[in-house]
Amino acid sequence: MDDMITTDCLTLADIREANERIKPHINRASVLRSDYPDDLTSAQLFFKCENFQEAGAFKVRGACNAVFGPNDKAAERGVCTHSSGNHALNLSYAAGRRGIPCNVVMPRTAPQAKKDAVQRYGGIITEGERSTTSREAVFAEVQAGTGGEFVHPYNDPRVIAGQATCSAELLEQTDGLDAVVAPIGGGGMISGTCLTLLNLAPEVKIYAAEPEQADDAFRSFKAGHIIADDAPVTLADGLKVPLKENTWHFVSNFVNDIHTASEDEIIAAMKTIWKHLRIVMEPSSAVPLATILKHPEVFKGKCVGVIITGGNVDLDKLPGTRG
Amino acid sequence: MDDMITTDCLTLADIREANERIKPHINRASVLRSDYPDDLTSAQLFFKCENFQEAGAFKVRGACNAVFGPNDKAAERGVCTHSSGNHALNLSYAAGRRGIPCNVVMPRTAPQAKKDAVQRYGGIITEGERSTTSREAVFAEVQAGTGGEFVHPYNDPRVIAGQATCSAELLEQTDGLDAVVAPIGGGGMISGTCLTLLNLAPEVKIYAAEPEQADDAFRSFKAGHIIADDAPVTLADGLKVPLKENTWHFVSNFVNDIHTASEDEIIAAMKTIWKHLRIVMEPSSAVPLATILKHPEVFKGKCVGVIITGGNVDLDKLPGTRG
Repeated sequence: MDDMITTDCLTLADIREANERIKPHINRASVLRSDYPDDLTSAQLFFKCENFQEAGAFKVRGACNAVFGPNDKAAERGVCTHSSGNHALNLSYAAGRRGIPCNVVMPRTAPQAKKDAVQRYGGIITEGERSTTSREAVFAEVQAGTGGEFVHPYNDPRVIAGQATCSAELLEQTDGLDAVVAPIGGGGMISGTCLTLLNLAPEVKIYAAEPEQADDAFRSFKAGHIIADDAPVTLADGLKVPLKENTWHFVSNFVNDIHTASEDEIIAAMKTIWKHLRIVMEPSSAVPLATILKHPEVFKGKCVGVIITGGNVDLDKLPGTRG
Repeated sequence: MDDMITTDCLTLADIREANERIKPHINRASVLRSDYPDDLTSAQLFFKCENFQEAGAFKVRGACNAVFGPNDKAAERGVCTHSSGNHALNLSYAAGRRGIPCNVVMPRTAPQAKKDAVQRYGGIITEGERSTTSREAVFAEVQAGTGGEFVHPYNDPRVIAGQATCSAELLEQTDGLDAVVAPIGGGGMISGTCLTLLNLAPEVKIYAAEPEQADDAFRSFKAGHIIADDAPVTLADGLKVPLKENTWHFVSNFVNDIHTASEDEIIAAMKTIWKHLRIVMEPSSAVPLATILKHPEVFKGKCVGVIITGGNVDLDKLPGTRG
């Protein structure tokens, strides 16, 4: 399905190497359980809480794997990227820990909480427009100006190998999972999940969860080739970016299915998680539970790992809390 | 200082027995860390997240210890209590797990989230007025009508022994704590904390944290005898109740100091925890961090356990999130 499957080179050794490299810089995030969502779904749900990472998202894994890979000489010009938010701030965090510069292009409309955090970690922000096309153009200028190493938010084998450590931990923290559900935007988390499960637990099914209003991965999956939306509108602001060739390789070959959920379904799932798991997470992280609730026939009676991808949300803009 | 020190009978054996009894019914709640509050306080803070208990608060520990203690014959008439919320719903949860009735008197003004949860767990609510005096009168009628075993929310050795298991876990989950800070209302958590630390880690200092607007424990501590407020007004709705003889015994003899914080300081600490630990917790649980921030000289350079007591909050009434 793909003319250049560069990620064929990723193996179990890459996950293990990433794990050793990033371990000093990340949290082994807790797995939480709660009766109420279990009762709602008739499944046993195991929530892997990547919102507990210091910089608030699983993206610290891929970012640290890329930042701490090169030797000191190779690393000194720093890193740069474009990102809707979480990759930007986690790359800034990783670069800050290594003491190298980090330049990021973020959409003007990214949540203020994410912009503030990037700056707190020492990242230098250049703002671009919301559309992916425009952002990539601004980025080319920034990269030319700084000479930093480009760390793509997801279409990068180092990043995918880093994200793969999340489900490797989840396997260690649980016993007998039947399935894992993760949100899908650019596909970095789901690709890492595929890489891990194919190697360590091939019997576990892999489902991606996407907002209906940014359903490019769903449509790509059904069509058999990448379809990119430009500037979709959804509350789940981390999931707006399109698949690229490296993530498409995993999505097209190894994901069992992609389910979508409406904005209202995402908000309802978010409130359930806030109320019953008592964690702060972003709307993107509620999409898996929203799709599990929408497809009970797929998950009933199963043990399901649910990736809570991040928790960087503007607290004064929480939908549904201003009533 | 006290004419009837009934809790002298509590020992390490009671903590261990409580721990074995309640283990199947509670979570070994995670301990979370975050750089940002550490930087703010110049201390290393270890947040014990009792908001992750199924019924949302540490009170499940004391409730389960009381509910699962008696034999089946003795337990069949059920339990009853009066509570500003968390004890009510955790006692209902515990009674529900044992399959025995639970009657609770709650103030009319208790958060709706807590009332809903009591009913979901099968508890039967009778509403009383906000003042402690009025609530106790209503309770006497309810108890006479049902014949249930009274489980006081805090002035009960079974409850104190149950709460003591929280800091016993915290000691196992950390290494080399210098101090523990817990909120103080009626004093059940702080008494359990004293019981554990006196037995297992007598070098660890014990601080209680109280809202300025409900500072009866602070004033009692300074005066050397119990001073009770009737119907104090604070956002920290779990901390309005007065000390009683069993908890006064621990507070007066073993607490190192009590610090207070204003409503604004409590809100600021709450926002810091939401934003950086990314957990949902009630205002009462923010009082320890508020007092640590207010007394940096006491905590600077120390390893400090901070008890996040609960997370049952009306999500559409979060202060500061309606901007």
